Amino acid sequence: MSLDAVPVAETRRKGDVEPLVRLAGPDMAAVDALIVERMQSQVPVIPMLADHLVAAGGKRLRPLLTIAAARAAGASGPIEAPVRLAAAVEFIHTATLLHDDVVDSSDLRRGKVAAHLIWGAPSSVLVGDYLFARAFELMVETGRMRALGILATASSVISEGEVLQLTRAHDLNLDQATYLRIISAKTAELFAAAAEAGAVGVDADDATVAALRAYGLNLGLAFQLADDALDYGGQSEVLGKNAGDDFREGKVTLPLLLAAARTRGREDAFWDRTINKGERTEDDFRRARELIVGSGSVAATLDLAWDYADLARDALSALPASDWRAALERLADFAVSRVA
Amino acid sequence: MSLDAVPVAETRRKGDVEPLVRLAGPDMAAVDALIVERMQSQVPVIPMLADHLVAAGGKRLRPLLTIAAARAAGASGPIEAPVRLAAAVEFIHTATLLHDDVVDSSDLRRGKVAAHLIWGAPSSVLVGDYLFARAFELMVETGRMRALGILATASSVISEGEVLQLTRAHDLNLDQATYLRIISAKTAELFAAAAEAGAVGVDADDATVAALRAYGLNLGLAFQLADDALDYGGQSEVLGKNAGDDFREGKVTLPLLLAAARTRGREDAFWDRTINKGERTEDDFRRARELIVGSGSVAATLDLAWDYADLARDALSALPASDWRAALERLADFAVSRVA
Repeated sequence: MSLDAVPVAETRRKGDVEPLVRLAGPDMAAVDALIVERMQSQVPVIPMLADHLVAAGGKRLRPLLTIAAARAAGASGPIEAPVRLAAAVEFIHTATLLHDDVVDSSDLRRGKVAAHLIWGAPSSVLVGDYLFARAFELMVETGRMRALGILATASSVISEGEVLQLTRAHDLNLDQATYLRIISAKTAELFAAAAEAGAVGVDADDATVAALRAYGLNLGLAFQLADDALDYGGQSEVLGKNAGDDFREGKVTLPLLLAAARTRGREDAFWDRTINKGERTEDDFRRARELIVGSGSVAATLDLAWDYADLARDALSALPASDWRAALERLADFAVSRVA
Repeated sequence: MSLDAVPVAETRRKGDVEPLVRLAGPDMAAVDALIVERMQSQVPVIPMLADHLVAAGGKRLRPLLTIAAARAAGASGPIEAPVRLAAAVEFIHTATLLHDDVVDSSDLRRGKVAAHLIWGAPSSVLVGDYLFARAFELMVETGRMRALGILATASSVISEGEVLQLTRAHDLNLDQATYLRIISAKTAELFAAAAEAGAVGVDADDATVAALRAYGLNLGLAFQLADDALDYGGQSEVLGKNAGDDFREGKVTLPLLLAAARTRGREDAFWDRTINKGERTEDDFRRARELIVGSGSVAATLDLAWDYADLARDALSALPASDWRAALERLADFAVSRVA
């Protein structure tokens, strides 16, 4: 069963990331050059390991947000501070991925074998620390204490969210509020801080900074909800990780929470065994996917993702109309439409 | 065989940390209160795990250096920025310890069971990240970008040193220069940055800042060399970890490097088997200790430690005479005399 089979409201807009990628091309070339320069080290395993993830690249969504926020706030000409902040944001994100993969014992990341399986968990932990420190060195160079404060706080919120997930996310009694608190901290906070720091990096006024932060936060929630839906319907090529990883790790996300509630009385023994008791087989994953998709829980998760995408769009109304604002609007839709 | 049996030059001064601890008492009470306040979190495992290490305390040498540097540079009255920087330094250090213990699979830290054995390696990795981020939040509050730059760079140097140690320190062909580069990065850099940041935190002049950085760097080298010597002669109560841990982990430190060179032709098979091939028993540790102490390699390591302690003392001559300077001089001697 694939997500093609999931009913999605016909009226939903098809988003696109490409307009933003095109607009930001020149700025992102500067960000990429800085990323490659600053991940160097005389200790050979550091650039090798960093390159494995950074060069693999993914969409570089977070630094793209920093650049787009600076431009949408009206900056023209060279934007040295946002370029440095964007590289810092990507380093913080990469450090988080390295540590996450160790914590979760994941075996695939951005479509490649996870770094800790090649260089070992100790290297992943330490190179993550290195990239995190390099991020702060980049921020210091901008001389902008407010941007530093935003990204320092985001970093502590992210790790707090990861710990909360670690201790609570294998528990069927997880309530939806705690689930949203976890994804808000571990994912949406960096989207919010990336956009906010970009605006602060060009001295945007407070209303613009607040609007771009709100955009980033809601965009991050939409992306994570869509990812969590995709884990029960996607292919590993789209996802950059294996579909079903959340279930295999016993990680409780919204599609599963909803399905457990919607099949209460009928499937309690199945959820109790696979999640609470942690006894899972590959057949169990197929059964879980049937129950989750069949009960409409993937569709409901995507509906909620659309709500956040709409909130992200709405936040942009505080900004003057521009190609950048239009590209950010299409990105908000893309956060969810890429899945459906 | 204990280190009592190791000949140490009679003329060496007996140092003491207590004069500095007494002088810094009121300032360190403020640092401790800030540490306890900032390691709180609504996610319960975070303060539990942080408290396990932070409350166990150790000597709090690094934040003590930050405070002492600010005072020795002439600051009187309240020193709000150095207090915040000192708490940040302790958080960076604690984060490093948490990650190190995961990387090395150590089972004892500060005389207590290592945190990762109680709460699991994932929690240690993530709470380390949390404390690191909290450190940067504290630094941002001081509004002092120069101090932030010092501690950001120190953090990247430390993790680089840790990776270098990970990839090179199990190799008998490690040369003394690389060994010194490793301990300079992984230990002495934070001592140097802690003292430098304290001086910068009270706007000391450049000569004073440079002198206090040099003091911290040489003090750190003296401490680490003495620790490495102690690992072949100390008791776990003094060391806060198990004597012999370096050997058990196959970690090549100066005492072992010197002993392997000094017993060349006689004991090559022993070192090759235990270090290069990694086949080690408890009997091998006793044999290694005999060879290391018997060949004078512990004494030679302590002699080098004394050289750095002297350099640390010398650096202080740039500062005006004061009780604080005198206490720092006694701390330099203590770095080594605590062992002999």
